[in-house]
Amino acid sequence: KKLRIAVLAGDGIGKEVMPEGIRVLEAAAKRFDLPLEMQHFDWAHCDYFAAHGQMMPDDWKAQLQGFDAILFGAVGWPATVPDHVSLWGSLLKFRREFDQYINLRPVRLFEGVPCPLAGRKPGDIDYYVVRENTEGEYTALGGIMFEGTDREMVLQEAVFTRKGADRLLKFAFDLAQSRSKKHVTLATKSNGIAISMPWWDKCAEAMAKNYPDVVLDKQHIDILTARFVLQPGRFDVVAATNLFGDILSDLGPATTGTIGLAPSANLNPERNFPSLFEPVHGSAPDIYGQNIANPIAMIWSVALMLDFLGDGKGAWRSAHDAIVDAISQTILSGPSTPDLGGQGKTPDVGKAIAERLA
Amino acid sequence: KKLRIAVLAGDGIGKEVMPEGIRVLEAAAKRFDLPLEMQHFDWAHCDYFAAHGQMMPDDWKAQLQGFDAILFGAVGWPATVPDHVSLWGSLLKFRREFDQYINLRPVRLFEGVPCPLAGRKPGDIDYYVVRENTEGEYTALGGIMFEGTDREMVLQEAVFTRKGADRLLKFAFDLAQSRSKKHVTLATKSNGIAISMPWWDKCAEAMAKNYPDVVLDKQHIDILTARFVLQPGRFDVVAATNLFGDILSDLGPATTGTIGLAPSANLNPERNFPSLFEPVHGSAPDIYGQNIANPIAMIWSVALMLDFLGDGKGAWRSAHDAIVDAISQTILSGPSTPDLGGQGKTPDVGKAIAERLA
Ligand SMILES: CC(C)[C@H](C(=O)O)[C@@H](O)C(=O)O
Ligand SMILES: CC(C)[C@H](C(=O)O)[C@@H](O)C(=O)O
Repeated sequence: KKLRIAVLAGDGIGKEVMPEGIRVLEAAAKRFDLPLEMQHFDWAHCDYFAAHGQMMPDDWKAQLQGFDAILFGAVGWPATVPDHVSLWGSLLKFRREFDQYINLRPVRLFEGVPCPLAGRKPGDIDYYVVRENTEGEYTALGGIMFEGTDREMVLQEAVFTRKGADRLLKFAFDLAQSRSKKHVTLATKSNGIAISMPWWDKCAEAMAKNYPDVVLDKQHIDILTARFVLQPGRFDVVAATNLFGDILSDLGPATTGTIGLAPSANLNPERNFPSLFEPVHGSAPDIYGQNIANPIAMIWSVALMLDFLGDGKGAWRSAHDAIVDAISQTILSGPSTPDLGGQGKTPDVGKAIAERLA
Repeated sequence: KKLRIAVLAGDGIGKEVMPEGIRVLEAAAKRFDLPLEMQHFDWAHCDYFAAHGQMMPDDWKAQLQGFDAILFGAVGWPATVPDHVSLWGSLLKFRREFDQYINLRPVRLFEGVPCPLAGRKPGDIDYYVVRENTEGEYTALGGIMFEGTDREMVLQEAVFTRKGADRLLKFAFDLAQSRSKKHVTLATKSNGIAISMPWWDKCAEAMAKNYPDVVLDKQHIDILTARFVLQPGRFDVVAATNLFGDILSDLGPATTGTIGLAPSANLNPERNFPSLFEPVHGSAPDIYGQNIANPIAMIWSVALMLDFLGDGKGAWRSAHDAIVDAISQTILSGPSTPDLGGQGKTPDVGKAIAERLA
């Protein structure tokens, strides 16, 4: 039986990097004889919104439900659709309605990438951000009162559930236990955000009791971001709420040279719904159209997808490893896009990786 | 008439850096003949809590109300008092009840400080974080429901007012207008946080209309933190909510080498209440007791205080400039504390700066 992958390229550079992701996916499927089929969907982008007044067809969920995975580019074109409309109408719906409650984001410094942090070498930066992906600070709950008067005020609600915190923490501790450092950092802000963050501290302390061999270190988000820059070697697995994980998983990759490398997996570990794989970078309107976007984040996301589809085993795991190897080699010997100091175009990098794989 | 300064050292390294702040303050007052008097208060620390069950006496507000400024060290000793209790019982009360609605935090790379960002030199990093300081994400509003059951959930409220946003933005735009770049970055997250952040975007756009010579650039907080690392030269004045400003004003200083340098001014610009001056770093229990804390953040905060007290004019401005000069020289020629690669103790640095000033 073939595993089915839904492909949605989205907006901006999503449309430029997706063909490279597919090129590499096809090369990997061929070499490792992976039973896969792909289907393209021409919605979940702002042109679709312009034509239909919504980001996706009404039956999007039914259309995607049977797939094993979703390969996603990037969404957002603020010149025509406000970001909160385009994102809440697509990506954030997938994450929430397909209960992709883990957003897993590896941060790693590759050999050959000029590191923006002075004196760091590969091995010095190597950790995971494990981000809660379905609740928390991202809500449309609340409202504006006394609008237009000098008493105007806004309430914005964040909502956390014990179930949501516990399953996120369990995933993070399990991951840490499988690694050599066995260390979990909780991103908190319990000194300022007085209800939810002290509660997160307690949830993490309770979970830590089940993992006597894993160390828990709670750090306030402000100093934590400082340490991503000053002491990146402290980190192994960083567990974070939706917002804090969002911040840390852009900042972390930035310290490894470019967010053009950073992949992510939006996981429903129980496989009740399709999981979604996408680069961390967005649609980047400022560089769209020049074909200079780095496709590696997209390609690495393809690798994460294969690993997840094969449950980290057999030919699927081999395909994942081979893609990551081909990425490493290409970073070392080129071609590379301008964000890495090169002159290569998006397809040059994709082709080089696909060829190394074949 | 003498201006009156209330001194509260707080916990941990607050107690180590405060004497150096005072040493420099006295040297500056002497040299520039500033009419000042200081009064020390032995509360707003966790030992006081241990003895009295609260961080401050009931009449703290009456005791401090008549002062022109508060010089503050750092609060927090989580081993005995949870951070949200100690902070909400002291610092956050000052900020809120004395309506210190601007938290102004300069970020600057000094000559002689080894920069953690590769290839950056003084001049490349030079901006202000202007943080809203009285409302927003820092609240104790909300609660826990179905506690102890598998339906347990938490609501956490953020509250923004138009008045709060507008006065923050006005301060930021005024500051930008007085500088050569004339550039305001708004830290937003309107693609995810769907009520309050789109509203912030609109407030900023409306304010920008009053400043045709100032450019407004809205950036989502995730990519903004990445750019603090990758493109620090983009920034001039960064306007941010309480939480985002908290994060950015630890991250920014980290990119300039150490948060041991970063000062802050908690301002009530109308002078209806005393303003508060403190280092950005906290009480740092991990290094307390060794006298290795860098006192420069505290000393620079003293300089900001003098500048504010004198309205940026006359002998007060000269005193500010002289302190910053003495800091610069001491960073260049030592002694320095371990965070800057030196072997100096806290008082060594304080004495060197005071001597340079005299
Ligand atoms: C100690 C803490 C409550 C405080 C804050 O978050 O405001 C500190 O981090 C700061 O930046 O002044
Ligand atoms: C586009 C945006 C809504 C999204 C997020 O904040 O989750 C993105 O920044 C990400 O990190 O995947």
